[in-house]
Amino acid sequence: MAMSNLIEYDQASTEVRAVYDDIMATRRTDRVNNFWKAIARDPTTLRRTWQSVKEIMTPGALDALTKEMIYVAVSVTNQCGYCIASHSAAARKAGMTDSMFAELMAVVGMANETNRLASGYQVEIDEQFKVR
Amino acid sequence: MAMSNLIEYDQASTEVRAVYDDIMATRRTDRVNNFWKAIARDPTTLRRTWQSVKEIMTPGALDALTKEMIYVAVSVTNQCGYCIASHSAAARKAGMTDSMFAELMAVVGMANETNRLASGYQVEIDEQFKVR
Amino acid sequence: MAMSNLIEYDQASTEVRAVYDDIMATRRTDRVNNFWKAIARDPTTLRRTWQSVKEIMTPGALDALTKEMIYVAVSVTNQCGYCIASHSAAARKAGMTDSMFAELMAVVGMANETNRLASGYQVEIDEQFKVR
Amino acid sequence: MAMSNLIEYDQASTEVRAVYDDIMATRRTDRVNNFWKAIARDPTTLRRTWQSVKEIMTPGALDALTKEMIYVAVSVTNQCGYCIASHSAAARKAGMTDSMFAELMAVVGMANETNRLASGYQVEIDEQFKVR
Amino acid sequence: MAMSNLIEYDQASTEVRAVYDDIMATRRTDRVNNFWKAIARDPTTLRRTWQSVKEIMTPGALDALTKEMIYVAVSVTNQCGYCIASHSAAARKAGMTDSMFAELMAVVGMANETNRLASGYQVEIDEQFKVR
Amino acid sequence: MAMSNLIEYDQASTEVRAVYDDIMATRRTDRVNNFWKAIARDPTTLRRTWQSVKEIMTPGALDALTKEMIYVAVSVTNQCGYCIASHSAAARKAGMTDSMFAELMAVVGMANETNRLASGYQVEIDEQFKVR
Repeated sequence: MAMSNLIEYDQASTEVRAVYDDIMATRRTDRVNNFWKAIARDPTTLRRTWQSVKEIMTPGALDALTKEMIYVAVSVTNQCGYCIASHSAAARKAGMTDSMFAELMAVVGMANETNRLASGYQVEIDEQFKVR
Repeated sequence: MAMSNLIEYDQASTEVRAVYDDIMATRRTDRVNNFWKAIARDPTTLRRTWQSVKEIMTPGALDALTKEMIYVAVSVTNQCGYCIASHSAAARKAGMTDSMFAELMAVVGMANETNRLASGYQVEIDEQFKVR
Repeated sequence: MAMSNLIEYDQASTEVRAVYDDIMATRRTDRVNNFWKAIARDPTTLRRTWQSVKEIMTPGALDALTKEMIYVAVSVTNQCGYCIASHSAAARKAGMTDSMFAELMAVVGMANETNRLASGYQVEIDEQFKVR
Repeated sequence: MAMSNLIEYDQASTEVRAVYDDIMATRRTDRVNNFWKAIARDPTTLRRTWQSVKEIMTPGALDALTKEMIYVAVSVTNQCGYCIASHSAAARKAGMTDSMFAELMAVVGMANETNRLASGYQVEIDEQFKVR
Repeated sequence: MAMSNLIEYDQASTEVRAVYDDIMATRRTDRVNNFWKAIARDPTTLRRTWQSVKEIMTPGALDALTKEMIYVAVSVTNQCGYCIASHSAAARKAGMTDSMFAELMAVVGMANETNRLASGYQVEIDEQFKVR
Repeated sequence: MAMSNLIEYDQASTEVRAVYDDIMATRRTDRVNNFWKAIARDPTTLRRTWQSVKEIMTPGALDALTKEMIYVAVSVTNQCGYCIASHSAAARKAGMTDSMFAELMAVVGMANETNRLASGYQVEIDEQFKVR
């Protein structure tokens, strides 16, 4: 995959560094992922994306580990190589064990299978699921 | 969406009824979803699919609610109308509240967004994510 | 799903009717699917799409039934409701039995599952698959 | 793509070796793909996945070659690099010629195109496709 | 598709009404789409999503019509029925003619086709595309 | 990704060279992308695909740059690494600036997000979008 131009901390503008600092403080780390360094080519995109991610990934009704595992589930379903690598690492950092990973993958695989069985067999939605 | 031929309990063969009974016993319910009634047109598919789902969805390192929410996350990502309806209902039955649902959807939405930013910006996988 | 404006035979221009006639002659039928009537709103799209489909679906190294089943496999994977309905019908017309359908669906489901296991487990491509 | 930890035959537990032996015997080969060696990190996943694949890929109403080509069709649609490589090789081993491959790819490409035309033009499902 | 609980203007809280007012003012309309009324069940999601959409869809280097057509392209690719309907309407409101729509759909269809040909034929990225 | 067999100009048949010549003349370049060289393994696929791409990408109601950006939008949504690389380059050649790219990516990301919110919240299509 092509190597994108990454905006390293020492090259970055004040605006971009402010976001990098917030990422590192929030995630309690001393490095910034390539993802952020790549989208930093457009400071508006960096700012807005981090703002949303920060808000969405804050533990709430769902804890951090659950949120990270959902992120992995989506990334695997979409076959995003970068995202699978980075979010699997984040999930492990949040406490995902090998057993949790194996069960997560099993559910993701099965869901991708039954999603197609449901559409292929043209299953009509049950009445009781229709009213909310 | 076309209505598929559903194999109702009273029409079903002994083999199919055995699976229906196991589904209802395992899920502690007195009904069988249209999904199972549809794939029951092929008893082998019904048996094997239920066997896998039963095994995979048994609480383990991940509890039942987490597994159901992952199932919703995948179904939403894949835009499977039937699956979103049925698994959202299953997740609520397993304890998903409105707040959990909102946070789950927020993560699913954001992950689908950043998956594309990562590929569009052609981000190279960080070295530290490459070695496992 | 919204009802699109369909160009019926008696409303159609000479150019569009020519395509409709060729579809009916090639497929040995006296009706034209809604799909063709919908894209006929742009005669260029209708002409080019039918030209490609006609060429691609002509029996060759693969017979008509195999080609129709592949079409169903893709449509199911993509969750296209219209396409699943129309191509399943076409496959049955080409000779697909209930057993074939069940096996086709089983493969489609399993492939969608193992595709995600492969990416989630970040499996490196075997050396022997790399050289062609 | 990150290199996953692969469980080689000589490192494997008795349980895992039993599955490897069955894979090699069934496929009449003396090697095990990286896919199996990767998911072998979770023996339950390995066992269940192989059990399903073995059952589903056994020739029946559809022969082995047709099943492998359907597997390729799905893998290509989902853009799974590992799966495309390994299943294309399996299809060739099952008898897929260059002509078959070209026709398979043409159908897969066209189906992915018309799936989108159908949804973009918001085509309503024909009455005759609705009743099964 | 199941009807979701929509939060109508007269039922809405002050916070939600403020967002509805901003949507209507920005889009110069006197109604709010079902999409906003549905996600309004979680005011945080409504606020954040509208904030991002408003910022991203503001004309800039790309004009409003181009942005709406890109939105349609993605929605069609993802087979999102709701989104195709609503964004096609928005694109027409922004100036999309029948000819533009036909050309947009042709590109979307072709791109979905060649994306699969590229992965199925396992094409290596040209050297000159690798360096940015 | 595996390196495919590419048919270089000097190895190519007269039929294939004719297509290569047309590609280079139409695109005003002295090279042919790996994509064309790969599908050239099947001259029928090469001819038909180029014919369609040439027709579809000709400026019309939409100009060349808009068409290339739509192509990028689809390729990013589908996570096609080859296509993202080659079409981003084509878009830049057609006049896409860094600002346009950033805005394009922002819309693609947002659309992929709201597509899932719409399906996850099971939003019913507004009446006014249903009639065309």
